[in-house]
Amino acid sequence: MIEPGSGPRAELLSIGSELLAGETLDTNAAFLGGELARLGVPLSRVTVLPDDRATIADAFRGGMDRSDLVITTGGLGPTHDDLTREGLADALGEALEPDADLEATLRARYAAFGRMPESNLRQAMRIASAVALPNPIGSAPGWWVAAVGGSFVALMPGVPSEMRRMWSEQVVPRLAARLPLRPVSVRAVKTFGIGESAVAERVGDLLEAPGAGVESGIYARDDGVHLRFFTRGDPALLDAPVARAVAILGDAVWGTDADELAGVALVALRRAGAESVASRETGTGGTLAGVLAAAVAVPGAARFVGGVVVAAGDGAASPWSTADAVLEVALLPTDASGRSRVRVGVTGAVNLPQVEVRIFGTGTQRLRRAAAAALDQVRRSLAG
Amino acid sequence: MIEPGSGPRAELLSIGSELLAGETLDTNAAFLGGELARLGVPLSRVTVLPDDRATIADAFRGGMDRSDLVITTGGLGPTHDDLTREGLADALGEALEPDADLEATLRARYAAFGRMPESNLRQAMRIASAVALPNPIGSAPGWWVAAVGGSFVALMPGVPSEMRRMWSEQVVPRLAARLPLRPVSVRAVKTFGIGESAVAERVGDLLEAPGAGVESGIYARDDGVHLRFFTRGDPALLDAPVARAVAILGDAVWGTDADELAGVALVALRRAGAESVASRETGTGGTLAGVLAAAVAVPGAARFVGGVVVAAGDGAASPWSTADAVLEVALLPTDASGRSRVRVGVTGAVNLPQVEVRIFGTGTQRLRRAAAAALDQVRRSLAG
Repeated sequence: MIEPGSGPRAELLSIGSELLAGETLDTNAAFLGGELARLGVPLSRVTVLPDDRATIADAFRGGMDRSDLVITTGGLGPTHDDLTREGLADALGEALEPDADLEATLRARYAAFGRMPESNLRQAMRIASAVALPNPIGSAPGWWVAAVGGSFVALMPGVPSEMRRMWSEQVVPRLAARLPLRPVSVRAVKTFGIGESAVAERVGDLLEAPGAGVESGIYARDDGVHLRFFTRGDPALLDAPVARAVAILGDAVWGTDADELAGVALVALRRAGAESVASRETGTGGTLAGVLAAAVAVPGAARFVGGVVVAAGDGAASPWSTADAVLEVALLPTDASGRSRVRVGVTGAVNLPQVEVRIFGTGTQRLRRAAAAALDQVRRSLAG
Repeated sequence: MIEPGSGPRAELLSIGSELLAGETLDTNAAFLGGELARLGVPLSRVTVLPDDRATIADAFRGGMDRSDLVITTGGLGPTHDDLTREGLADALGEALEPDADLEATLRARYAAFGRMPESNLRQAMRIASAVALPNPIGSAPGWWVAAVGGSFVALMPGVPSEMRRMWSEQVVPRLAARLPLRPVSVRAVKTFGIGESAVAERVGDLLEAPGAGVESGIYARDDGVHLRFFTRGDPALLDAPVARAVAILGDAVWGTDADELAGVALVALRRAGAESVASRETGTGGTLAGVLAAAVAVPGAARFVGGVVVAAGDGAASPWSTADAVLEVALLPTDASGRSRVRVGVTGAVNLPQVEVRIFGTGTQRLRRAAAAALDQVRRSLAG
């Protein structure tokens, strides 16, 4: 993983008491962390703050001291709890003034719905040093500020769809024009069926020394253990460590880069003679059908026509009559030691006898791992 | 929502560069935020930090200055990147020393797997003021420290299952013995079919003044808009605002407190004459079957036997022959203005003609809203 280094420093303030109360998961932080890592300005800190004006102002002061870029999400709504604008104004010693253009935009937006609540005029206030960032899908404009000490500050809404659009359309172009970005290239090697520590042991030397200008990371995911290699230099620097990892890990590797396990399994089934595939799952509550239905279409893949979901203990579902092959998975009851086994097979034009596979995990992760184990088993059985 | 008030202050340090790189969603922060809110020690701040010893030590110093309780997750693993122990030792000016008991526990744990990597001995290091917290399902012990300035510090692993168990078994009992906890009672009123701003308009006065000693919040969720009422006093204080909200919101209300929409719909179907229910869904990729399969069993509910998942465009699935009733949902293609419609009906012993319902949202949220809309429509049609 690319760590904050000698380049520009970025930090995020996630503002909203609902984040601290566990009411809302801060998915914005993960999105922005990934985006900034790829741009070569990795996040060095995230601070989640309550809707408190003095606390927010303090956090802006600390952020502008430490970092070249301070990004915020949340606290731009129309209510008295939305205090991000006030916090930045206080930190910069500026006053909020009405912006006639912003007010006109807001009133136009509300014209379609009838009367605009006067409280919304808070969203048309601005400090002199802030440039307003348009929000075409929401009422809260963002702000872009080039602060006196040399830091840049970007305020964005907390609604993820509004934030993501403002980020890509308004903030990223400004960053690209003002900061020395060093975009990062990433390649991934994806495995299933061996644990994280076993993978780490086999490729430990490679992860330690993946080559000049290359960094590495290892990640446990529902679809197995992934290795990633990163560089800010020539993307071709990543080819050698990827090839080496694939060679070392052998048939545990099911794909690289953007590959999805469902797509890999559907390609294997098509090669084996099935143009269409259905699923039949017991005890996994539709997870396998969900993964297959959500898979990005891949050239040469069998078509997923649908699935049958059997609640554990009820076995009366009829088979899927129109598919060439039916992928069957049954999540067996947890044994006394807490281990889970999955029974996997394929019937129809492609026939794979049932086998049992061990998985780990609890709750919904156990269901997702069961679906992944089924897809991986198909891929393994049909390989070569 | 209960905001940090005059009671003890808590903050969380989430430690791990993978959180900053967007590789991992910080679900631990949401879990602990909810837990601490219910205990009456709401989180006042979360800081996500990289695996950097000096940064971690600084954050401990700041946290112990500001707060009565500093909790951390992550950075307790065996590798050189795991620096939470070192950071706290630096902040407290203490030295890490080997703990013979911890080492024996670690070696016993690894005995089953063969040789223990010597690097794991880092997990058996301890400062003198720390009490080790056992981790029965992982290798990283936690720490509990009563720091000199009067703050308490709890270090927990980043693996969610390990953290949750250590939290409930080791940390909560210590908090209860040492901090003046004021547990919070919560009641919820759950609606579907009206937007957040429309709900807010109808119950605005109630949310502003829910009664002495009562606080309120409004939350948009996949299964509709929820109201919540909180008190640190007599839980009976919540009865009046809950009853008032139910009266105002009428048939938009589908349940209260721990009710689930799937359970409510299955009870309505059983009352209408179906002992068993299957689902048939098109375009939602198994989401409805997943929600029904995961529903907590409720007395008087019809039994969910399973479902058929039809990939959009493929209509050849056979009906579920053994169920009394089949709940059918089809997510129709998004129209030009980006709106989504869902077609809902029930066939069999319970028969509801197909109707169309509008939903909002994109991506997987759109699928979950479609499933919720189907369950809500069943509940509404069979009410009374």
